[in-house]
Amino acid sequence: MTEIGQSAGNPVFKANTGDPQRPYARYPSRRQEESMELSPDWVVGFVDGEGCFHVSVQSHPEMTAGYQVLPEFVVVQHIRDIQILYALKKFFKGGVVRVNHDERYCYRVRKIEQLEEICEFFMSHPLKTKKNVDFKKFRKIILLMKEQKHLNKEGLKQIIDLAMQMNTTERPALERVKKTLENG
Amino acid sequence: MTEIGQSAGNPVFKANTGDPQRPYARYPSRRQEESMELSPDWVVGFVDGEGCFHVSVQSHPEMTAGYQVLPEFVVVQHIRDIQILYALKKFFKGGVVRVNHDERYCYRVRKIEQLEEICEFFMSHPLKTKKNVDFKKFRKIILLMKEQKHLNKEGLKQIIDLAMQMNTTERPALERVKKTLENG
Repeated sequence: MTEIGQSAGNPVFKANTGDPQRPYARYPSRRQEESMELSPDWVVGFVDGEGCFHVSVQSHPEMTAGYQVLPEFVVVQHIRDIQILYALKKFFKGGVVRVNHDERYCYRVRKIEQLEEICEFFMSHPLKTKKNVDFKKFRKIILLMKEQKHLNKEGLKQIIDLAMQMNTTERPALERVKKTLENG
Repeated sequence: MTEIGQSAGNPVFKANTGDPQRPYARYPSRRQEESMELSPDWVVGFVDGEGCFHVSVQSHPEMTAGYQVLPEFVVVQHIRDIQILYALKKFFKGGVVRVNHDERYCYRVRKIEQLEEICEFFMSHPLKTKKNVDFKKFRKIILLMKEQKHLNKEGLKQIIDLAMQMNTTERPALERVKKTLENG
């Protein structure tokens, strides 16, 4: 029962409840997902297309500066390609695979130590699109956080300035936090 | 004046008329674009994320079966990453880079001979996402066209059946052509 690619009806497959026109909509089991090996160059190409380096700042009264910095690395795919997300998790030796919305799932890394390792990977295997510019801002933020700079107001402002230079929908929210810090 | 990466004002750069927050919005010249080297694995990863194998069928009274089959391989990017599109053109030794819509550009291949070569590449360097299932249908269509099967009604129906199994927004249009052929 552990072989890969057996016929329909085998419990390693989940039933296709979607479009009957899509012959590949029989989703692989986690066992199959984990068997996929990715090369560094493939990962760079795929992340150039589908990856996202994202930084948000949220109010958090218990933090010294009153705000919490939340950096994350995310790749979103339709459930039919969930095996790619598990393969990325295996490749980067960390992170989680979670529902994003509807039939979309994400591979997500939030732990600073794992984000540091991901930054090291993309420093030695540079992204080729302009996403690399975002990545470099993201890495600076991770390095500042490693030095605990996000715990004081000056460091937090520096992080927000970097995050605002990234390709982000968070800019209005970041702008608001920045103004609060400047007036506070 | 031929060096790469000179300061703003050098004519190899086009002016940034977009978002002043985006430091990379100074677009590279075609000379810079062509200097980018892509590895096969990077191309596979990027196409897994951003590539599209597309087949449409259009009415064409001069063709024997009354319809023309139009297969194409397309990669769309924002203009900030137009250099990637030129690098793909160089990598695949063919195709064109064109405006898609607004600030989006596409790398597009339509010539059957070039599509055949692209199919050979993705046969020896398989896509890892479920896009590979679409690609295989696409390749079958290219092989049928190479054998001139698209010029008679039976071959055309076979091609339409394959195209309808792909991840496509063309399905209603293909369905209409199929019905016309069956009734004709």
